[in-house]
Amino acid sequence: MCPAKVVDGVTRGFVIPIGGAEERKSDPAILKRFVELSGGKAAVIVIIPTASKLADTGANYEQVFLELGAHQAVSLAISSRDDAARADYLELLQQATGIFITGGNQLRLSTIIGGTPVAQAIRKLNAGGVHVAGTSAGAAIMPEHMIAGGPTGALPNEQGVTFAPGLGLINKVLLDQHFSQRNRLGRLLSAVSYNPFASGLGICEDTAAFIGPDDMLEVVGSGSITVVDPSGLKHSSMADARIGEAITLIGLTLHMLSSGAKFDLNTREAFPK
Amino acid sequence: MCPAKVVDGVTRGFVIPIGGAEERKSDPAILKRFVELSGGKAAVIVIIPTASKLADTGANYEQVFLELGAHQAVSLAISSRDDAARADYLELLQQATGIFITGGNQLRLSTIIGGTPVAQAIRKLNAGGVHVAGTSAGAAIMPEHMIAGGPTGALPNEQGVTFAPGLGLINKVLLDQHFSQRNRLGRLLSAVSYNPFASGLGICEDTAAFIGPDDMLEVVGSGSITVVDPSGLKHSSMADARIGEAITLIGLTLHMLSSGAKFDLNTREAFPK
Repeated sequence: MCPAKVVDGVTRGFVIPIGGAEERKSDPAILKRFVELSGGKAAVIVIIPTASKLADTGANYEQVFLELGAHQAVSLAISSRDDAARADYLELLQQATGIFITGGNQLRLSTIIGGTPVAQAIRKLNAGGVHVAGTSAGAAIMPEHMIAGGPTGALPNEQGVTFAPGLGLINKVLLDQHFSQRNRLGRLLSAVSYNPFASGLGICEDTAAFIGPDDMLEVVGSGSITVVDPSGLKHSSMADARIGEAITLIGLTLHMLSSGAKFDLNTREAFPK
Repeated sequence: MCPAKVVDGVTRGFVIPIGGAEERKSDPAILKRFVELSGGKAAVIVIIPTASKLADTGANYEQVFLELGAHQAVSLAISSRDDAARADYLELLQQATGIFITGGNQLRLSTIIGGTPVAQAIRKLNAGGVHVAGTSAGAAIMPEHMIAGGPTGALPNEQGVTFAPGLGLINKVLLDQHFSQRNRLGRLLSAVSYNPFASGLGICEDTAAFIGPDDMLEVVGSGSITVVDPSGLKHSSMADARIGEAITLIGLTLHMLSSGAKFDLNTREAFPK
């Protein structure tokens, strides 16, 4: 799904995929910046804890965002598709200046909220200027094409990644999270090479991509983002590879970006801090 | 150390780093090609088992090369610097059409043979047309700058690699072995970014780079070689990074090369099978 249409004169909100395990106490740079962006003391953060099966995930984040100075933080207890159509939840979403999607299992998230009024509302609100952050599974679901799974390892292969349709807040990148921690370069390379139209972002834990309405991405956090840009790809053996066979990919561009570095999703240029 | 000078009218031998754990029985594509290159039925393979502390490493490879049809295969029991000056060993080396350096510990190998008559002989023989293959530690020691150690992981960092001077058979590449199996992209990126003059080769197990006298590399084996070419590097934060800090590297070129693919060490162009 493509991002929802932005009405003339309106600026789209930021889309902020986080690689999981973001710092919440000692130096919560990412969440702090998200709250500030969402209005600081005036911020109303609505939390979607659906990816998690833990009962206290939503409440924990409410606490974190209030400690970071948000005016209000409320978690929507959506654990079924019916929940994702509740009028009171949709009303709360309309108050949001920032929406936060927690971690857990991205297929749980996509199967429960995919195509529901809540998903439609998140898409429209983002197009209307509301910032949407998501961590781990909550980051995975953001693109048009969501990485749902795949084997670990550094090498691409013919069965190297499983896709599912995502929320479609962004469609110029594919992304994977817990990137270095879970050794996921191989599945990002597989994803990028299945159809080399989009850049791949490998986002480390405690690291976020703040993607602005101008499609400029800025790295925030203690880790790094690995960018694989396949726009110069000259040859790929992906289509001809047998199961388990090593893959040839010629002409990828690779950037390692740490805090403050930027990447323009349109021109695919990277910039240092 | 630079490669030894090639005399006019003579063609340098191949340099063949192998990523370790090469197949020796069922489909020994790499070792078979090495024996064929070294003369097949006329091949005289001299084995340097010094990196290994196991007593039977040399004898095992003698057996393998004889089974692959070599005329002669002899292992030199070099386990001290004195051994590496023995006249009988130097005489045997002069008979070699192919030299094979086994795996083990590359620092053991470099501390024992570095600067000895055996090391000098290997360099001169290679310049004179004798092919030199090495697996794991035996591959690590081949370049001018040898990767001696470093942490595992996908990300470069300021203390991400330890170098030691190598044998200097090749000086246009840095290389690491057991590459995907031991998750070594981070230390290859660190190595390449310390001084971005050379391309980095990450060689998987059961995979070899057959580097010809024309500096054309061909991949042989069941895995792949990850090539990181820093010649287009536009920015590196390596010099300014504090210990443990994430690194920014902008503008690397990345190729994944499987069996039959080639890479020209001079032009840094990659070619599919």
